[in-house]
Amino acid sequence: MKKLINDPEDVVVEALRGMAAAHPDHLRVDLEKKVIYRKDAPVRGKVGLVSGGGSGHEPMHGGFVGLGMLDAACAGEVFTSPVPDQMMAATTAVDGGAGVLHIVKNYTGDVMNFEMAAEMADADSGIQVRTVVTNDDVAVKDSLYTAGRRGVGVTVLLEKIVGAAAEQGRPLEEIADLATKVNESGRSMGLALTSCTVPSAGKPTFELGDDEFELGIGIHGEPGRERRPMASARELAQQLVEPILEDLPRKDGQPVLAFVNGMGGTPLIEQYLMFNEVQTILAKADIQVARSLVGNYITSLEMAGLSVTLLTLDDDLIGLWDAPVNTPGLRWGA
Amino acid sequence: MKKLINDPEDVVVEALRGMAAAHPDHLRVDLEKKVIYRKDAPVRGKVGLVSGGGSGHEPMHGGFVGLGMLDAACAGEVFTSPVPDQMMAATTAVDGGAGVLHIVKNYTGDVMNFEMAAEMADADSGIQVRTVVTNDDVAVKDSLYTAGRRGVGVTVLLEKIVGAAAEQGRPLEEIADLATKVNESGRSMGLALTSCTVPSAGKPTFELGDDEFELGIGIHGEPGRERRPMASARELAQQLVEPILEDLPRKDGQPVLAFVNGMGGTPLIEQYLMFNEVQTILAKADIQVARSLVGNYITSLEMAGLSVTLLTLDDDLIGLWDAPVNTPGLRWGA
Repeated sequence: MKKLINDPEDVVVEALRGMAAAHPDHLRVDLEKKVIYRKDAPVRGKVGLVSGGGSGHEPMHGGFVGLGMLDAACAGEVFTSPVPDQMMAATTAVDGGAGVLHIVKNYTGDVMNFEMAAEMADADSGIQVRTVVTNDDVAVKDSLYTAGRRGVGVTVLLEKIVGAAAEQGRPLEEIADLATKVNESGRSMGLALTSCTVPSAGKPTFELGDDEFELGIGIHGEPGRERRPMASARELAQQLVEPILEDLPRKDGQPVLAFVNGMGGTPLIEQYLMFNEVQTILAKADIQVARSLVGNYITSLEMAGLSVTLLTLDDDLIGLWDAPVNTPGLRWGA
Repeated sequence: MKKLINDPEDVVVEALRGMAAAHPDHLRVDLEKKVIYRKDAPVRGKVGLVSGGGSGHEPMHGGFVGLGMLDAACAGEVFTSPVPDQMMAATTAVDGGAGVLHIVKNYTGDVMNFEMAAEMADADSGIQVRTVVTNDDVAVKDSLYTAGRRGVGVTVLLEKIVGAAAEQGRPLEEIADLATKVNESGRSMGLALTSCTVPSAGKPTFELGDDEFELGIGIHGEPGRERRPMASARELAQQLVEPILEDLPRKDGQPVLAFVNGMGGTPLIEQYLMFNEVQTILAKADIQVARSLVGNYITSLEMAGLSVTLLTLDDDLIGLWDAPVNTPGLRWGA
């Protein structure tokens, strides 16, 4: 294992130190609790947005803290859920009197721990908490760390869109309904060309042959649908987009947001090339791509691979997507 | 070789198609000439900024086209200089009557071809062209593709800073002087943990053992200073920052911009961890980090590795750095 780290045990806290040092005007980092806060949290009268999960998916979630997106992100160890204590601290700290939304990817540990934190926050401080659990991955029904579908790329889009709505001052119930709507309007599927290596494990999570890829890979390297022989970008895009379209709730004429996400080790030139393939497939199906996102946003350390997320849009979602955002990982108009 | 591509010969043009499809509101792409334009180019009365170079370093340069940065970027084949014909077309297309600056990384092919294009633009259309050649890499004096130092990370910072100055309407001579000043105020050094694979070659450019890294690597995988045994992030940061500081023009009290750049295959969590190490070294040397940048900006396909760039700042440079920018790869305040 060759990595730019010191002791594998210190990776998360040292990276958090780096985030704090790189973004002093925007973020405040509680190094003991491993929670990243928007510097001006709590924002009075605004619904607070809290997310979190295992580290190793950067920029998600810590890189999405800031104006127009999250108020706090709890960082677990690499590929390990944060604990309720972190989520409880974040929830209390960002409550500006309008309640808090927990944005949780559907992994058993995360769901359980966020649930516990929500109950504690209500019991201890009377903070109103609503929860959305993202489960957009069409690859598998149940998985190594999940009952039901896994939460992946839609989480990024949801944090942006719901973050903009919270910034507008929409109330908690409306924010929670919007979050549910975004999750239900999006579907994702990924593939891997290589494994990643968890620092504390020191060796690749799995092995893939030189001529195969894993279709439907999870963001922790957990198995997908199957291993298939390596194919052209054109064929791979088809294998990702087809199962998404089969399952995507969408009426004729509704545009989509197309999100091509690098898993960490796949260069941007290949991501744009794949975006071209995705766009070509959608154009043939007479589906308009009204908005798009290409880059490394929800990653699996240095895994080579890519995921595609499609989100069915309406005017409200487009307006919220276009609204200003100012985070280390996503920034425009601010 | 496992890559998300179709025919290796089509990688660049297909990625350009993807860029055009992903950024229709911001960019216009001439697929035949392989030039990416800011959509509203030429901007009347503004100095036009043209850069370019081999592909494989994305988001540089095409991802830096837009308001507050470049007006056009010429894309060569992977790790291969674009040709004078492309640069000539770009120069003519972006001239808004105030002349054009060529921003050229110091590689023999790029320098020669941009020089030829500048002469042609002057002779054919009377367009005033000035050129800045970046050469900030302290690793080696001469290199596989370079006489003199190589141009690396400072190029990104220069395109942002000089782009902001052009947006303000500063005249060509002033823009050219500013570009020279930025180049002279910055120094860089990189390292690699793995090689990258050029699609048309189909195999890694070089081999590195499991316990070694290459100090002073070039962005095309060309040799650096030497191979050394793998070390901790703390020691690696020291090996990068020390030679930079030895050479960086800087008076006591002047702050710096610290830029930690991923080479393509190194995850963001490691980049932030390394930023923490760099920041710690600079704090000990009593050097204030007034601005920072962390992420994949000038890459070498999927190479695992990292470079550090330090740029000595003054108030003018800070103001220009903070000015709005709206490109696919760098975006704030717009």
